[in-house]
Amino acid sequence: MKIAILGFGTVGSGAYEAAKSAPGIEVKRIVDLRDFPDYRDILTKDINDVLDDDEIELVAECMGGVHPAYEFVTGAMRRGKHVVTPNKNLVSACYDELMACAAENGVEFRFTPAAGGGIPWLYNLMRSRRCDEILEVHGIVNGTCNYILDNMHTNGADFAAVLAEAQALGYAERDPSADIDGHDTLRKCVISSNIAFDARLREEDIPTFGIRSITAEDVAWCNANGYTCKLLMNAGLAGDALYAYVEPELFTADALESGVKANFNLITLTGVNVGPLSFYGQGAGMMPTGTSLVQDMIDIAAGIGFAPADGGTAHTLDNTKVAHRYYFRGSDLSGLPASVIAEQFARGSDTVVLTAPISVTAAHQFAADCAARGIDFFMAGINE
Amino acid sequence: MKIAILGFGTVGSGAYEAAKSAPGIEVKRIVDLRDFPDYRDILTKDINDVLDDDEIELVAECMGGVHPAYEFVTGAMRRGKHVVTPNKNLVSACYDELMACAAENGVEFRFTPAAGGGIPWLYNLMRSRRCDEILEVHGIVNGTCNYILDNMHTNGADFAAVLAEAQALGYAERDPSADIDGHDTLRKCVISSNIAFDARLREEDIPTFGIRSITAEDVAWCNANGYTCKLLMNAGLAGDALYAYVEPELFTADALESGVKANFNLITLTGVNVGPLSFYGQGAGMMPTGTSLVQDMIDIAAGIGFAPADGGTAHTLDNTKVAHRYYFRGSDLSGLPASVIAEQFARGSDTVVLTAPISVTAAHQFAADCAARGIDFFMAGINE
Repeated sequence: MKIAILGFGTVGSGAYEAAKSAPGIEVKRIVDLRDFPDYRDILTKDINDVLDDDEIELVAECMGGVHPAYEFVTGAMRRGKHVVTPNKNLVSACYDELMACAAENGVEFRFTPAAGGGIPWLYNLMRSRRCDEILEVHGIVNGTCNYILDNMHTNGADFAAVLAEAQALGYAERDPSADIDGHDTLRKCVISSNIAFDARLREEDIPTFGIRSITAEDVAWCNANGYTCKLLMNAGLAGDALYAYVEPELFTADALESGVKANFNLITLTGVNVGPLSFYGQGAGMMPTGTSLVQDMIDIAAGIGFAPADGGTAHTLDNTKVAHRYYFRGSDLSGLPASVIAEQFARGSDTVVLTAPISVTAAHQFAADCAARGIDFFMAGINE
Repeated sequence: MKIAILGFGTVGSGAYEAAKSAPGIEVKRIVDLRDFPDYRDILTKDINDVLDDDEIELVAECMGGVHPAYEFVTGAMRRGKHVVTPNKNLVSACYDELMACAAENGVEFRFTPAAGGGIPWLYNLMRSRRCDEILEVHGIVNGTCNYILDNMHTNGADFAAVLAEAQALGYAERDPSADIDGHDTLRKCVISSNIAFDARLREEDIPTFGIRSITAEDVAWCNANGYTCKLLMNAGLAGDALYAYVEPELFTADALESGVKANFNLITLTGVNVGPLSFYGQGAGMMPTGTSLVQDMIDIAAGIGFAPADGGTAHTLDNTKVAHRYYFRGSDLSGLPASVIAEQFARGSDTVVLTAPISVTAAHQFAADCAARGIDFFMAGINE
């Protein structure tokens, strides 16, 4: 099968390398506005060199971002070309349109590396659903945040110092907002939930709290109390509704999540039949992600796949039905009702509160109120 | 697709239940010598009612043991029927013959639950190999041993007491030898290695040391020194040869393996491209294993699969090339050369030695010598 790679950055070049050991996959074109002297024989700046080439049966979109990736991907599908992509921004923002476009044009659209990078998480989630009901999904899906948190736990370092180190090592972007504010985790939550529950969740509906405001003192408290802090995506069935949220969570030492080091990911589904099933590995990186993308290509070439959800279901999102204890720390927690305070103490000019079990809705609303009032605030769910 | 289930025990009845939610899979026959009044309409004691029924396209062998499972499975294949099985004894003992029989008769032979139970380990191992080279596989693949070791670590209990409790709960067989002497782990090592490396390993060639001789004092020493003891399978490339062995291993607190509780399994592959990839879940049990078996059926019905290794390669097994430190404890360790003793102390009438790095071959040879001399002995590799 002749393919084209759009975007020759980290993942695009990883896919190119991995495709070398995939019999039957031949990279005919690379589309990139930059020059790569070693690849000039197949390099072009013009997307039409791919769209107009009937020999190219599959397009691997590795540019990132929503536009013009969306236009290129849908353009390729309308020309009868299959599409694979690791682009979580695109898949999360345009899930419904892309699934519909693939179905209308009778082509395959695969995006296994869009959540989990090198981990075949989405692939196995789809496979599991064939004879099991998924009750919930959760996981550590952002390697940058895990690297930062792991280093803070191990070295006692400040958030800013570890972030700067991660940026120097290339583990974090120059603008780290998508990672540390939880937006990347949110996108993987949307994609995973849509597959697990036939849902059509929208990013803007899912409460998301990142790790930007965590301090060395917060981590020291975790260490002293036997907790490890991780950034988690969570989604699951709650009666007729779904819950879905992104927040830091505190795990006890014997939780599998506590053993996830450096920039690794760990993602779990719970099925009625199979129980908990977890997948661990490299959630990003040139060769892991590129290889996962090529695995999707091989599946398409071999006719291996799982029927996608049939149009999806408009689930109600209801985070009032999930409740747990929280760690709150802020310069002013006076807005908190006394009834939810299980334990409270001062730390310098800050207040720390361990809450009674409260709903995710209530906790994230309180966080939003703090943000609106300009209060320095950090929170983490307590996993028990 | 009409199917038959041979053996209506735990896994057979789990597969029956799971098949209810698998569209297109219909259980036409159950073969068992026992009576199950609720299933008399499809129950038979005669295997020929299945073999002679051309409507039955697939046979799920859930009887266990090598004979007559082997005769029934090959008989079904020769009648053009696909076969799925969770039977690790059968697959490990007769791997080559069964793969050849399936190929000769143009049918599919799948056994995902034979290692990992409900975990799609073997399935993903096969999928990974398509565009990656597997360097090594290792894992906790025996839930009974993990349950026993976890309880010994948590409760400080004696081996015999925890084993008796596990037997009472149905987690351990009345004759627990296959589990606690490592034979079950060995079989899963053979099967995983054959797939990972196109190998044709034989059970009798792989050094295997179980947990039968571990004591509360061994575990107390582990706890005091920050180690968690697990029973592991290990196999991988060593130059042109392979290494493969089964032994207890000591993991530090931050290893993922240390977080594997109760009767769960955790199995890892390391690929050149993808790096380490781990799979965690229920390694046994009625619904997890039954569901995994039905997933194999759905794959066959949908034409989903991965070309098996082409005849296999006769790898040399060479455990002299892998070396690590060991914990040795015995009533008489005087046979040990002084050069390998890094640390030594007495515990009651026993001697405990922490070795310098020694080869797996040397360690298992020493264990065999102790056994031959009737010396009470326990050893565990130290994972670093």
